Amino acid sequence: MVNKIEHIGIAVKNIDDANVLFEKLLGVPSYKMETVETENVVTSFFQTGTNKIELLMATNPESAIARFLEKKGEGIHHIAFDVEDIQAEITRLKNEGFVLITDVPKKGADNKLVVFLHPKNTNGVLVELCQEIK
Amino acid sequence: MVNKIEHIGIAVKNIDDANVLFEKLLGVPSYKMETVETENVVTSFFQTGTNKIELLMATNPESAIARFLEKKGEGIHHIAFDVEDIQAEITRLKNEGFVLITDVPKKGADNKLVVFLHPKNTNGVLVELCQEIK
Repeated sequence: MVNKIEHIGIAVKNIDDANVLFEKLLGVPSYKMETVETENVVTSFFQTGTNKIELLMATNPESAIARFLEKKGEGIHHIAFDVEDIQAEITRLKNEGFVLITDVPKKGADNKLVVFLHPKNTNGVLVELCQEIK
Repeated sequence: MVNKIEHIGIAVKNIDDANVLFEKLLGVPSYKMETVETENVVTSFFQTGTNKIELLMATNPESAIARFLEKKGEGIHHIAFDVEDIQAEITRLKNEGFVLITDVPKKGADNKLVVFLHPKNTNGVLVELCQEIK
């Protein structure tokens, strides 16, 4: 099973402007910015309670975030659940009938192994599973 | 400032089907269903870590959820932050330039006073503030 919501990913056009806005909203500043070259994104993280807010800006038009912005505009992009053992969760969820976008976890932002479930099987919600790399 | 993410609201077409699916995904069953007559919605709550997932189904075409489903389809509808003093937060956020959909908090699901910020000022994210009614 999943432990908890690890973070909420939000697609933004301009991450500097969004950093200012989310600092005002949450009352805390971004504690980290990180570029994920393989995903063509710049990310910015805010801590709120036991969860994080991850802002995502595309670094080029090939990014999934660029395509999301074009199709849907700015807004909530995904919800990420923390898991202990991502491989065991992948097996469990596939047995339950969920479909993964890619079968093999890859390294994401914030020192995580990540995999995404296809939103067509999750009521339109893009679900990320993430396991901390120890 | 906001304390933490209280819940993530997800708009669904069929709440019974979505209950089955989210029980499989999260590994726990819905712990409560509640109709909010004033909002024309049926809600279903799941606990995950210190947060909740709230599924929302429209009970008639006048519901904001019905309009959301028509425009955007199923998916994440809003992110709700827990606050101690909703009136103080409304004042603080208006002073910071945020715009509220309605200025006066109203009673929502799960024994909360709630108010929504307009997504045009929050990078397309529909943000709810909620304060527990003591």
